[in-house]
Amino acid sequence: MNELKYALPEGRVLTDPDVTASYGRDRTFLEPGKARAVVLAQSRDDVVATLRWASEHQVPVVPRGAGTGLAGGSTAVDGCVILSLHRMTAIRELSAGDEIAVVEPGVITADLDRAAREHGLMYAPDPSSYEISTIGGNLATNAGGLRCVKYGVTRDSALGLEVVLADGRILNTGRRTVKGVTGYDLTSLFVGSEGTLGVITLATVRLRRAPAPPATVAAEFTSAVDAASAVSAIIAAGCQPSLLELIDHATLRAIDDWKNIGLEPGTRAMLIAQSEDGAEQRMAGLCEENGASNVAVEEDGSELVGLRRLAYPAKERLGQCLVEDVCVPRTALPEMIARIEAAAAAHDVLICTVAHAGDGNLHPVFVFERGLPEPPPNVWAAADEVFRAALDLGGTLTGEHGVGLLKRRWLALECGPVVTEIHHGIKQLFDPQNILNPGKAI
Amino acid sequence: MNELKYALPEGRVLTDPDVTASYGRDRTFLEPGKARAVVLAQSRDDVVATLRWASEHQVPVVPRGAGTGLAGGSTAVDGCVILSLHRMTAIRELSAGDEIAVVEPGVITADLDRAAREHGLMYAPDPSSYEISTIGGNLATNAGGLRCVKYGVTRDSALGLEVVLADGRILNTGRRTVKGVTGYDLTSLFVGSEGTLGVITLATVRLRRAPAPPATVAAEFTSAVDAASAVSAIIAAGCQPSLLELIDHATLRAIDDWKNIGLEPGTRAMLIAQSEDGAEQRMAGLCEENGASNVAVEEDGSELVGLRRLAYPAKERLGQCLVEDVCVPRTALPEMIARIEAAAAAHDVLICTVAHAGDGNLHPVFVFERGLPEPPPNVWAAADEVFRAALDLGGTLTGEHGVGLLKRRWLALECGPVVTEIHHGIKQLFDPQNILNPGKAI
Repeated sequence: MNELKYALPEGRVLTDPDVTASYGRDRTFLEPGKARAVVLAQSRDDVVATLRWASEHQVPVVPRGAGTGLAGGSTAVDGCVILSLHRMTAIRELSAGDEIAVVEPGVITADLDRAAREHGLMYAPDPSSYEISTIGGNLATNAGGLRCVKYGVTRDSALGLEVVLADGRILNTGRRTVKGVTGYDLTSLFVGSEGTLGVITLATVRLRRAPAPPATVAAEFTSAVDAASAVSAIIAAGCQPSLLELIDHATLRAIDDWKNIGLEPGTRAMLIAQSEDGAEQRMAGLCEENGASNVAVEEDGSELVGLRRLAYPAKERLGQCLVEDVCVPRTALPEMIARIEAAAAAHDVLICTVAHAGDGNLHPVFVFERGLPEPPPNVWAAADEVFRAALDLGGTLTGEHGVGLLKRRWLALECGPVVTEIHHGIKQLFDPQNILNPGKAI
Repeated sequence: MNELKYALPEGRVLTDPDVTASYGRDRTFLEPGKARAVVLAQSRDDVVATLRWASEHQVPVVPRGAGTGLAGGSTAVDGCVILSLHRMTAIRELSAGDEIAVVEPGVITADLDRAAREHGLMYAPDPSSYEISTIGGNLATNAGGLRCVKYGVTRDSALGLEVVLADGRILNTGRRTVKGVTGYDLTSLFVGSEGTLGVITLATVRLRRAPAPPATVAAEFTSAVDAASAVSAIIAAGCQPSLLELIDHATLRAIDDWKNIGLEPGTRAMLIAQSEDGAEQRMAGLCEENGASNVAVEEDGSELVGLRRLAYPAKERLGQCLVEDVCVPRTALPEMIARIEAAAAAHDVLICTVAHAGDGNLHPVFVFERGLPEPPPNVWAAADEVFRAALDLGGTLTGEHGVGLLKRRWLALECGPVVTEIHHGIKQLFDPQNILNPGKAI
């Protein structure tokens, strides 16, 4: 440890057990392992020095942004060094003409978006945590968000990366141009690799023209299946919503209990949709055609989107949460909702679901008793049923949160033996000593 | 060879030297090596049998779609078996609700687009060769096209792949959902890998809503730099063109010599732009503000786009062509055009350039004497200068054609030693015997 301290500028290495413990968690309930130190990197050189030292001594390294992950990807493992990138916050370049930014990994997602807006641009990916999450963490998990129904996920905005490899070598992937096919797509390989292949120290990301302020539609339905049918109709009509969210009955009740939103007794689901292209009346009409009981169109939708953003805190009031993240082909949305409701009933578990419905990406949140170290068996049983249902419907275990630790036990259901072999071969190539975020993602 | 014939259904293996020679070329001038056989695969099983046999006997395999490549990626190497996928032409599924298609690699790109249009959808990627190129070839090269300024390149439409690996194992990558983050992004790794990592036998691709028919703007300029400035202005104004092409003076003259289009003597460049969102008048205005001498807006732009599609055949009338493909950040477009013109003058070479200008992707075509086995030294010298200029301006050697054989000698200028090491490590992982398209791409 003295060697590491010596290799880095004064004050970068923290070993106080209270401090290391506070850096060990993400947003899951998972009990972290005991880290031996936290490195607060302020430059690429700090990252290189840390990884060289870790390679030499075969010490596990857990890279970390803001710790807003929902799958355990950045939880500490025993004996590790936590490598925090949250102090690398420079926006090195923002080119309005080329519509790109070059940013350090600790930049807060919403800060980059705000910086882009000053030039009439935006940074599109907006995970729910975007006011506190970092670009580096978003890249590591290939984060999604509300806008990705129109603008794609984080990978779709990543053009090039500077990555420090496990042995301290520096790899530059991708480019500054919007197109380019020289060599293998290493940028996409690192995006979503959850810190297991290297540590991202700089990213060239794509910005987009900031759109006109959207108009917002809110529609109440007497059944979630009707709401899901309206989603299909909106997509099929080519409305190109910039946001299309479904909130189920359990979630609406949790919000209503807290904030008294005047939920009608017959309302079993709500859709919130936005259009930047003047399609709000068409979307409203399609909601009515698909059985909506109440439809509102508003110019300023901030209150309605605010309602959607209350979903998580409203559930957290009810107990501890296992936040899940299945994604299914869009046409399977009604069936998936029915299967979630069936799993909740069969195992007597409260499951509150919100969905990025336009993408078929559902977040069933399994609520369980506070104080328990982990979800009780009936919650795991219900979750197991939900995962299997998603795969059965042609879907995936995780649409945007990542595998982390939480979903590893179901991984083999989705990835057959050949994929698993290839995953481990790639891991071996980049990190032969298995020091980078060991035990995560694959 | 008898063993291979025995392993495949009757008639799949052709060994007549005239036939194998005819399958050995792509669209470049490159003299192919001597193949020992052509396999006309009709199923995944045929591909598996071929690769198993090739692995066992360490025979090189060159996979091939329609042979429309422009970089030598599918030219035969000595002693190889050419594995042609062009008979695997089934569109296995087309789901309008999920906006996906599941297709075999030999499907002609435009055929998939036409099939999608019957459902109000489209397949967006449209390389210039899309009436004759295959989806498999497009995936292998990550092909671009005219529409990608709005809809992205082939990789942006690839959701999942079935790939036969060098040893005959079957790997399924990706998924049917629009989002998903389970495991490493193997789909993106295979897209653009130019047949060096595996053979794609099935692809799940994304379809998009077919847009309204576009309106077309054609603008003539007295300088290419003015035209490039108009491109920047159109992008900066957020017009979202669905096509934005620049044709330089040498190309216009080649077309005019052939088709008598009435080219004005003062016209030194032309822009052709399309909008599906009613932005044609704004784009026309921006062309005028940037010095266009003549601007037309047309509802039916098929003639104008047809003019653009004449660019290649018009140049081929003048001699043999070395078709290049550099891509630069958009703001560097005027400077890149000036550098191409300087290289042409310095080395006394005719270079005709068209550009997917909205992407900063230029195709300088170096015309040289017919009958020569390869470009003469002054053409290579000019090309070398153009490649170095693109890299110097923050660009790349190839925006959409691939590295193939043609650009290998410049590869090290763009990919440093770490990238090169990683490329070879990945190749080694997937193809330890180096039998898949050896000598290409990396």
